[in-house]
Amino acid sequence: MTPNSEIKPTNDILDYLIRDGLILTLSPDFPEPFTGSIGIQEGKIVFIQPKGSQVFMPPAKKIINARGFLVMPGLVNTHTHGAMTLFRGLADDLPLKTWLEQFIFPAEIRFVNEDSVYWGTLLACAEMILSGTTTFADGYFYMDEAAKAVDRSGMRAVVCQGILDFPIPGIPDPTQKLLVAGRFVETWEGFSPLIHTGIFCHSPYTCSSETLRTVKALCRKKQVPFFIHAAETKEEVSLIQSREGKTPIHYLQALDLLDAQTIAVHAIHLDSSEIELLAQTRTAVAHCPESNMKLASGITPVAEMLKKGVLVGLGTDGCASNNDLDLFKEMDTAAKLEKVHYADPTVMDARTTVRMATIEGAHVLSLEKTIGSLEVGKEADIIFLELFRPHLIPCYNPFSMLVYAAGGADVHSVMIAGKMVMEDRKILTFDINEVLEQVNRLSQLIISGY
Amino acid sequence: MTPNSEIKPTNDILDYLIRDGLILTLSPDFPEPFTGSIGIQEGKIVFIQPKGSQVFMPPAKKIINARGFLVMPGLVNTHTHGAMTLFRGLADDLPLKTWLEQFIFPAEIRFVNEDSVYWGTLLACAEMILSGTTTFADGYFYMDEAAKAVDRSGMRAVVCQGILDFPIPGIPDPTQKLLVAGRFVETWEGFSPLIHTGIFCHSPYTCSSETLRTVKALCRKKQVPFFIHAAETKEEVSLIQSREGKTPIHYLQALDLLDAQTIAVHAIHLDSSEIELLAQTRTAVAHCPESNMKLASGITPVAEMLKKGVLVGLGTDGCASNNDLDLFKEMDTAAKLEKVHYADPTVMDARTTVRMATIEGAHVLSLEKTIGSLEVGKEADIIFLELFRPHLIPCYNPFSMLVYAAGGADVHSVMIAGKMVMEDRKILTFDINEVLEQVNRLSQLIISGY
Repeated sequence: MTPNSEIKPTNDILDYLIRDGLILTLSPDFPEPFTGSIGIQEGKIVFIQPKGSQVFMPPAKKIINARGFLVMPGLVNTHTHGAMTLFRGLADDLPLKTWLEQFIFPAEIRFVNEDSVYWGTLLACAEMILSGTTTFADGYFYMDEAAKAVDRSGMRAVVCQGILDFPIPGIPDPTQKLLVAGRFVETWEGFSPLIHTGIFCHSPYTCSSETLRTVKALCRKKQVPFFIHAAETKEEVSLIQSREGKTPIHYLQALDLLDAQTIAVHAIHLDSSEIELLAQTRTAVAHCPESNMKLASGITPVAEMLKKGVLVGLGTDGCASNNDLDLFKEMDTAAKLEKVHYADPTVMDARTTVRMATIEGAHVLSLEKTIGSLEVGKEADIIFLELFRPHLIPCYNPFSMLVYAAGGADVHSVMIAGKMVMEDRKILTFDINEVLEQVNRLSQLIISGY
Repeated sequence: MTPNSEIKPTNDILDYLIRDGLILTLSPDFPEPFTGSIGIQEGKIVFIQPKGSQVFMPPAKKIINARGFLVMPGLVNTHTHGAMTLFRGLADDLPLKTWLEQFIFPAEIRFVNEDSVYWGTLLACAEMILSGTTTFADGYFYMDEAAKAVDRSGMRAVVCQGILDFPIPGIPDPTQKLLVAGRFVETWEGFSPLIHTGIFCHSPYTCSSETLRTVKALCRKKQVPFFIHAAETKEEVSLIQSREGKTPIHYLQALDLLDAQTIAVHAIHLDSSEIELLAQTRTAVAHCPESNMKLASGITPVAEMLKKGVLVGLGTDGCASNNDLDLFKEMDTAAKLEKVHYADPTVMDARTTVRMATIEGAHVLSLEKTIGSLEVGKEADIIFLELFRPHLIPCYNPFSMLVYAAGGADVHSVMIAGKMVMEDRKILTFDINEVLEQVNRLSQLIISGY
């Protein structure tokens, strides 16, 4: 049942041949799961063949026997704050204002630094790899350190510098924020094929219209995505409405911020015209149902968004408000929440939900040409799930199994860009024990600081 | 990090000494977690001592070094249909009527028999043990076979004969249903200290008032619990209202069905007077949020129930409508769903939620004197969770960790009535591979029958 690798004799062509797996491509060519093979060369998928249809089977340096495994694209997390793993469970079950003002902001002021961002982000990478996520969008502070952690982990990421109008960790002088963000993008965009960059304006209520406009202009100039928490709470909507005479999405539109490289995170409290605006402008939504439930922010009208053609991906949000980074749990919750919200068990079916966590998530991050599905020419970001586990059988429908029964712990192995980063639940790219020790050290500091 | 057992020399007293674990008792004596020891003799807890406070430490046959583990009572699943694991994922994302009438009922007629109930229930036991559940309430058909499976698994259960007014698997002649149920209770009540019995009337719309009354009378005579799905859908409420002139809970009260040995399953669509009635009569509620969401049935007003003093436990429901039996996922969903429902992040805090999955669940099943918390004199139903895992650290608050971050796969070992039934994720009481093979055989039959 374990994918065993074996070295074959010389004159090899493929780097990897994945054989006899139950393949779920999420591509239009193969809409249904089938048993077959995948060839990988120089980090890319070079062929996909259903079993029995093989016209050729080139030799390979390593063969992965994937019989008994589901083989699918790695999951895409369109929104998190990686280093906030350090604040997991620090302050739960509190009113949003108390949570933010009495716990999270003070903790960030005291404990967010280069050291904690590096180790917190690496812990996030460990958790995501172990639960089958291969690409994530991160937005936080001290992002050079986050990018270093991502680079070490072997993950693919869109690493975004966080921006607010007041002093933040790493940018004590707010007038320097554009400079810092610009320098960050220049340093890391293209640093490696796995690292992309972006800029994350915290919200319409913590960034002025001037900040929002100039940051978006910088993003357009650098051709990188622009993220913003938007329409997350009723309070935000009231505030923006009274200050600007418009609801948040209309306000962002008036500032000319909406386009296919803008990602509205949460996007809960919207009227129909705002949903239509998101669709028309191709603005993407990062849907974070678990965080939205836990903070009691509200329920994103995803079913309506999909009907109107809005591009929606899934996100976990940070660990201070979820409190984990498992996209399998997020898929389960996302599907069930829409059903009960619309009193309709047919909305957000399992297939739609899996697409949201893979190819649609890739679309949200403008990476749909390289990842999000298994297709010839795409990057080999592939996860392997054990099928014959008590809670996953029988498996009449792999989409249902993935959404309603599987969890991150069912992911056996993970490949990113053709490189194994986890095998048999062992992370190969860095020493997990070192991370656990460093996080333990940092969490002791955080506890003693309270 | 693994609990290692070692045999000590003769003149032993304890069967097990659990040492240096982070203990969460859920008892009033120790409301907060602490590091300490637990002694077990003849299946029962004989002492609990915080570290450093030991006045004596008797010798033990086996010592479990639980350093690095959270040690807590096994979880209590107050509602499932065990054998429906065989229908996991068979029919999802469908309207309730289509799901029930075109898929589940026909599948039950064709494929529910002694063979499938035995193996389906044993698969359910495997899944529950592997995710930290030690006690469950089951309601289905061919319950002799279910009881045999429970007995083999080493789990504790309230095994209930299902009752409907039309022909059901195992009871083709509805006039025989009382006889069958009575004989089942007589056979299995007291068969072993781990097996309790009960009777499960399917619903107010599939059982006549005569059936409901006579079954409850039988339960009272035998002193066993009476279960019923009640107020699950709006359609049911309308139907009972128009047929009886009363909403479901008032109808059950008029039939004199409500008392501390009656469990209302789902209990979603209730008015305030019905919630008060449940509290006054001490009728318990089995809350199944994941099933209620997936079938789009609605949201149980748990926060209001708790405020009014209703006893509420957690249940997973069967695998045709969830689709797993993991109470950790159920806790996470239960807490988050109430928060977003009431737009209040303080309701259903982590501690309340853990209690619901342990001691309150035990109360629901009238087993609170023997299980549900770690207390001297209670049964040793204990689970061990690994603490130092990437998605569980830092652990500032064990209650938060259990509800918002942990999953069933974090359970390392499970003890029931002082006997290890799982160690290091290996089930010790039966051969899991035999179950997987038998379930594979049965699922092939089910697929080919469609």
